[in-house]
Amino acid sequence: MDLEAIKDIERLKYRYTRALDTKEWGDLAETLMADVTAIYGEQLEFDSRDTFVSFLENTLGTHMITEHQCGQPEIDVDGDSATGVWLLADTVVVPEDGMLMRGSAFYHDRYTKCEDGQWRIAHTGYDRIWESVLSLSDVPSFRLASNRWAKLATVPAATVEVARPDGLIA
Amino acid sequence: MDLEAIKDIERLKYRYTRALDTKEWGDLAETLMADVTAIYGEQLEFDSRDTFVSFLENTLGTHMITEHQCGQPEIDVDGDSATGVWLLADTVVVPEDGMLMRGSAFYHDRYTKCEDGQWRIAHTGYDRIWESVLSLSDVPSFRLASNRWAKLATVPAATVEVARPDGLIA
Amino acid sequence: MDLEAIKDIERLKYRYTRALDTKEWGDLAETLMADVTAIYGEQLEFDSRDTFVSFLENTLGTHMITEHQCGQPEIDVDGDSATGVWLLADTVVVPEDGMLMRGSAFYHDRYTKCEDGQWRIAHTGYDRIWESVLSLSDVPSFRLASNRWAKLATVPAATVEVARPDGLIA
Repeated sequence: MDLEAIKDIERLKYRYTRALDTKEWGDLAETLMADVTAIYGEQLEFDSRDTFVSFLENTLGTHMITEHQCGQPEIDVDGDSATGVWLLADTVVVPEDGMLMRGSAFYHDRYTKCEDGQWRIAHTGYDRIWESVLSLSDVPSFRLASNRWAKLATVPAATVEVARPDGLIA
Repeated sequence: MDLEAIKDIERLKYRYTRALDTKEWGDLAETLMADVTAIYGEQLEFDSRDTFVSFLENTLGTHMITEHQCGQPEIDVDGDSATGVWLLADTVVVPEDGMLMRGSAFYHDRYTKCEDGQWRIAHTGYDRIWESVLSLSDVPSFRLASNRWAKLATVPAATVEVARPDGLIA
Repeated sequence: MDLEAIKDIERLKYRYTRALDTKEWGDLAETLMADVTAIYGEQLEFDSRDTFVSFLENTLGTHMITEHQCGQPEIDVDGDSATGVWLLADTVVVPEDGMLMRGSAFYHDRYTKCEDGQWRIAHTGYDRIWESVLSLSDVPSFRLASNRWAKLATVPAATVEVARPDGLIA
């Protein structure tokens, strides 16, 4: 068992999901092969890093809070190639639309060890288990006590009300 | 520290939880000793793989979406035996009943390395921290944009409405 | 790559978060350096184990259910020092206030290997991505089917109603 390669690949995935949720698109691009392929459901397919990262950057802008919890890695390494299965539990909030999404999926990835010694994502995509959407108008007391993107978003200020409760830390 | 055994056991648990959420009962059975014991709270106990898997298969049918997020492993290996503590954060949706469950628990497992070299679950069970139930009638805008089991479930079609939002991917 | 040190530090963090959610403050204290520093946002700072643990113990009492899901470790070890970045997804329920909190953050920690050979947390703190609060009065059907702290909490009994659904296990 190549424990170092497994750890490298786990960390690669965690860097990818962190870059996704912090909207650090340059950092995210570095986790991908130039000819990466990505498939989401039947409608969304990408066959290059440039088109994939552009799509993510344009879609997941500062108007949208995303949380990608990724874990439960099942990684098989074969020389300079590897495969990985992961559970994703994702949450998305779009304050300006009053929309909350929750769901889960299983990622099926392929990885390649590049000439510079770094593992990168060669293919990614997932099979959904479920995905729900909810209008926040059903829960009128819902407030964002914190939103990293609020100051950056081109959102009517009234839609990003802040009510900070005391003592919700650690 | 037997890092390979720890990784084998982590992967065993991830295969178990993936099989649970994808309802692959044969795959799930392979993660268990024939004489596995399982204890949930004060009322539910099992003392064989057959009765445990039958219960899961009958209870967690295609009428029910489950999400078992399992992480934070604390594993101790002692030869061919091991123990593991894990955080579980679980979500269950039963569309036909309009029911949403959320909660968390700590698993306390035992594992055995079998004669074929594979680790299997010898005992599982958890202590609940919390568990909440909610009627989806309180949130009438709630929609399943995706449900892997919708086509398989014997559910009145109207209860599994689909409203797919654009751009909620990655 | 020092895989044993990384595993030790992962386990240290999991013990910390487990102690947090099970309110085992003595166990939590053992994960911290005596001169640990902790910073949460702009207002909350601590510079010793005693003040930090006292704050947690006083704030996160049995009136409050907490769930700290911590994963996606990115750990760098340099001799007897290490750094770690982690995703936190947290949920808090305060039954007596009818309050539900959900959010995420990225922890940025430092660790020290002590003279007794144990790694401990030298610094912790996080940057919030988001944090939401909701009044449970918006979802009147919400019930706690399980609450480890219900019997211990000094809460009017009527606020901790129990409605146990059948078959929500595993």
